[in-house]
Amino acid sequence: MLLESLQGPSDLRAFSLPQLHVMAEEIRTVISQTVQQNGGHLASNLGVVELSIALHYVFDSPRDKMIWDVSHQTYAHKLLTGRYASFSTLRQTDGLSGFSNPDESPHDLFTTGHAGTALSSALGLAKARDLRKENEHVIAILGDASLTNGLTLEALSNVASTTHRLIIILNDNGFSIAPNVGAIAKILSRLIQHPTYARCKRLCKYFLNLIPGGSSCIPALRSMKRRIKSLFLPSSFFEEFGLHYWGPVDGHHLSDLIHYLQGCQKASSPMLLHVKTQKGHGNAAVVQHPEAFHGVAVKHNTPSTSVSNYSELLGRCLEHMMETDERVVAITAAMAHGTGLDRVQKKFPSRVWDVGIAEAHAVTFAAGMAKGGLFPVCAIYSTFMQRAVDSIFHDVSLQSLPMLICMDRAGLSCQDGPTHHGLFDIALLASAPSVIYVQPKNPQEWVDLFFSARQWQRPVLMRYPKSFSEPFPTISNAAFIPIGTAEILQEGHDICLCAIGPLVAVAQRLAPLFQEQGISITIINVRFISPLDETCLAALIPQHHLCVTLEEHVLAGGFGSLMATWMAHSGIRTPLYPIAWPQQWIPHTSCDADLQKRFGLDAASIFKKILQRWHSLS
Amino acid sequence: MLLESLQGPSDLRAFSLPQLHVMAEEIRTVISQTVQQNGGHLASNLGVVELSIALHYVFDSPRDKMIWDVSHQTYAHKLLTGRYASFSTLRQTDGLSGFSNPDESPHDLFTTGHAGTALSSALGLAKARDLRKENEHVIAILGDASLTNGLTLEALSNVASTTHRLIIILNDNGFSIAPNVGAIAKILSRLIQHPTYARCKRLCKYFLNLIPGGSSCIPALRSMKRRIKSLFLPSSFFEEFGLHYWGPVDGHHLSDLIHYLQGCQKASSPMLLHVKTQKGHGNAAVVQHPEAFHGVAVKHNTPSTSVSNYSELLGRCLEHMMETDERVVAITAAMAHGTGLDRVQKKFPSRVWDVGIAEAHAVTFAAGMAKGGLFPVCAIYSTFMQRAVDSIFHDVSLQSLPMLICMDRAGLSCQDGPTHHGLFDIALLASAPSVIYVQPKNPQEWVDLFFSARQWQRPVLMRYPKSFSEPFPTISNAAFIPIGTAEILQEGHDICLCAIGPLVAVAQRLAPLFQEQGISITIINVRFISPLDETCLAALIPQHHLCVTLEEHVLAGGFGSLMATWMAHSGIRTPLYPIAWPQQWIPHTSCDADLQKRFGLDAASIFKKILQRWHSLS
Repeated sequence: MLLESLQGPSDLRAFSLPQLHVMAEEIRTVISQTVQQNGGHLASNLGVVELSIALHYVFDSPRDKMIWDVSHQTYAHKLLTGRYASFSTLRQTDGLSGFSNPDESPHDLFTTGHAGTALSSALGLAKARDLRKENEHVIAILGDASLTNGLTLEALSNVASTTHRLIIILNDNGFSIAPNVGAIAKILSRLIQHPTYARCKRLCKYFLNLIPGGSSCIPALRSMKRRIKSLFLPSSFFEEFGLHYWGPVDGHHLSDLIHYLQGCQKASSPMLLHVKTQKGHGNAAVVQHPEAFHGVAVKHNTPSTSVSNYSELLGRCLEHMMETDERVVAITAAMAHGTGLDRVQKKFPSRVWDVGIAEAHAVTFAAGMAKGGLFPVCAIYSTFMQRAVDSIFHDVSLQSLPMLICMDRAGLSCQDGPTHHGLFDIALLASAPSVIYVQPKNPQEWVDLFFSARQWQRPVLMRYPKSFSEPFPTISNAAFIPIGTAEILQEGHDICLCAIGPLVAVAQRLAPLFQEQGISITIINVRFISPLDETCLAALIPQHHLCVTLEEHVLAGGFGSLMATWMAHSGIRTPLYPIAWPQQWIPHTSCDADLQKRFGLDAASIFKKILQRWHSLS
Repeated sequence: MLLESLQGPSDLRAFSLPQLHVMAEEIRTVISQTVQQNGGHLASNLGVVELSIALHYVFDSPRDKMIWDVSHQTYAHKLLTGRYASFSTLRQTDGLSGFSNPDESPHDLFTTGHAGTALSSALGLAKARDLRKENEHVIAILGDASLTNGLTLEALSNVASTTHRLIIILNDNGFSIAPNVGAIAKILSRLIQHPTYARCKRLCKYFLNLIPGGSSCIPALRSMKRRIKSLFLPSSFFEEFGLHYWGPVDGHHLSDLIHYLQGCQKASSPMLLHVKTQKGHGNAAVVQHPEAFHGVAVKHNTPSTSVSNYSELLGRCLEHMMETDERVVAITAAMAHGTGLDRVQKKFPSRVWDVGIAEAHAVTFAAGMAKGGLFPVCAIYSTFMQRAVDSIFHDVSLQSLPMLICMDRAGLSCQDGPTHHGLFDIALLASAPSVIYVQPKNPQEWVDLFFSARQWQRPVLMRYPKSFSEPFPTISNAAFIPIGTAEILQEGHDICLCAIGPLVAVAQRLAPLFQEQGISITIINVRFISPLDETCLAALIPQHHLCVTLEEHVLAGGFGSLMATWMAHSGIRTPLYPIAWPQQWIPHTSCDADLQKRFGLDAASIFKKILQRWHSLS
């Protein structure tokens, strides 16, 4: 196997073109086998095998710096940069990350996982290089979907004024996670589909050279020249941004890719090379259904008990609500499948929007619709809500608009790791005035809160994990839950356990163990992180010797933090012990249980911690 | 005076064109006089007088919905919509807001103050209208600088796929707060400066009509037609986004404006009307120096003691650092003047960037430069950091990159009100792992922390208010402050006052009053919000009967909240009383003191509160 003999990417340059083709096939096989075993991103990685080979053939990493946007598509890059031997540990505990990671290799620049950051980061690296008067290449590789993202567009607008040397590879598969949306997708498809491009090119150059001028021509003529060029070459969009545009190039044609990348090396102005790739290339099943193979779930990781996803529940509840209430609309940001909105997207196409990887626009646009009298349900993963914080504060909370933000993947996202754990949302969003912040204890309560939110006439943020093992709930006849009401599940007198979300069930599992120790337990399903049920909590907590909070969120700024603040401010003197995740970046592991054990946050460790604290009270 | 007789905007339609011109002059006079008295935005408001009149002449507000981006330029709009009589209360306590505010008038749709949100919100309103099958107009009015903002660009990419009817007014003064930057500014200036535009237009239409087709023509011909058109009409940029582009129109020519706006009314596709305005139009001094008249400070509000701004201090310290350390670079997001970066911008033009209203790009771009071995100092107001939260988490904290983020205007921004108070940054950003979060007690400590941050090799966030009344500090010979070290200013044994920023001085002023009551006070200048000086605090606090935290930030998630969390988690049983701002939107007032009194957060009220809590301890 050629891949085995590869010490590093520089070895590639000794290979012949046929050998590089063999290499591509080997990489495809390894990726397919590993993803089948470990789960991961399949379609996108199969799509960039030749591009990865060509990039490492032409450029000299790590001296030249490649920044992969999102970096979920770096499997081939990992295999080419000395990680073939450890590749079977992909996404496993202590194994390779599913994203780029500087701790793994000097060929990885940043630990990333969110889309749209590569161009900004690369521009920073390029500028630092310019100021240091060095000359390495900086190459940003981004998917077409990243062009729907505001950060990419902000950076795009700044490229030409910042540096003369930056190479942007636009990896265009006409399709990010879901079919791409908006005007920029159309601009790209016009560029791709323009049939006369290749033929026009030479003709155009010929005619342009007939016009007097070149570098010395007067501005008016140069401007005319530019416009005549735009008549034949449909590249004006990127050229408007001051980039030199090349493409489209077939992203699976190795020698063409190498040829064009070598051209980019010589460019003296910022370049955008438009590469047309096919998601899942080389695997017919994946090519047919790339969306199904975006994130492949790991097989052996599924427990024997049946597991359902909250996304399925959101889809069904939303369908039910939209059928009976025509003011309800739904919005997501390139997560229609992941959040469950695809169900209503098909059924109510005129009332459901996927706005692209544009979380801020998703929220502010939804706020505009709320102002216009609709009830928007906006579904975005917890970790991606970090990108819409100002929209929540400035456009939702300040206007106090009735709408519902559903935050899926709150809590651990074990195989994806630090960029995907939803462990910060409460800290980032719960201080927004007038916002109702809830986390249901189980799927039935999820349903109740979902339908109650429609009645509350306030902005509502609901966080919940990806899946549940309880029976699938009934969605008709939801119970109305009044704003700010906690639920007392068990009354005792020693320790008051205040929990949210799945930790409520953990508290319930622990109660008999405490009982065995002669410790009497109260369990409160706090449910409303904001506003807290102050009446209930102020009445109950002081009757105990210890109050404990349980949550899947970092300690600083989380639920326990809000409880500690409220208790201190209200003068409640009962000792509080907040149990939460430490303020550090939590790595990826094979499964949630591994992480919980490692950080002492599995049920057994929680029990031990509470007992310790209990015994430490004099 | 015509303005006095105006009951509402619909009265305008009875006026003749000469009367509208008189009205424009009256409005200019009222605005100039009021801003001279009360402070406020002068240049931008003088620039849109005719545009505001024309909009209200043509459209039927509040049935038709106008959304002003940022909304600092709505003074004429306010005068035209029934607020002439109360206009003298602009930016005063209980008076008119300096921004749009639905509590003031049904003609104001949203309470805004941050740039770049109007297009998203307007798109939401337009879509809600479409779904309700109604037909009012929705008009978004945005400045050219908002096109540098990611949220605007995300929305722009979604306009054509969302609605067929939206009117975008691009108020282009080639200049936002500071001269505009980046590729989009160049695109606009090409549109503006194209001299052949008007002449070409009729000619082009004529030739286009010679090509067979129109609505029935085959796609290839239509595409050719589009490209021929782009040869003569330099409007391709916005047309790429699926907008119908009109302009540029002289924004001070009332009858032209009315004519074009009436045309917009009839459009059946999303329209962008490019209006060329002049900042400060009608006032020669303002036209000459619009930046100086962006935000005019109120005269009578200046206390007799001399007040300096931290922006001046940042400019001088940065200049000093950049002179001796060539790795230091500086970045801001359209706040070069407001943050003090203009000083080094002039002196080191190749090492200072204003990236436009693109806070996320500013931070991620800076992170890229840090990765490239530079030390970036990024200066952004506290309230605008809300727009770069994911950049702090994903691109700075996760990579643990050494850089310094300076957050000016942390705390109250009294005359601007809810959108500008910097009261949320700790909640939003201090839970980011590995980040050092500081607030200096005074300008001398600001200098020490600023230069120390260069040594810490970690991401640093420093928050500070706009101004200080202490003497201007010396900037050479800064003392090195080790990470996570608090400063004990006074040792006692009853109450431990833990304060940050300007509240340290308040604590020092209160100490003798407590002494008079026989209460002995410890004062800790905590300084490091994260990491807390756990050793110092854990040693001192338990020696007291009460610990009090003081800060200029909301309670939930703020400094007191972090202290309560840490104390609870560490098992420190000393009662804590966190004093902070309530979790609500704080209005504008004439001066900080008014707000502090109203919310019980002036020194006297704080003293009273602490005494009460002290006496309530049994």
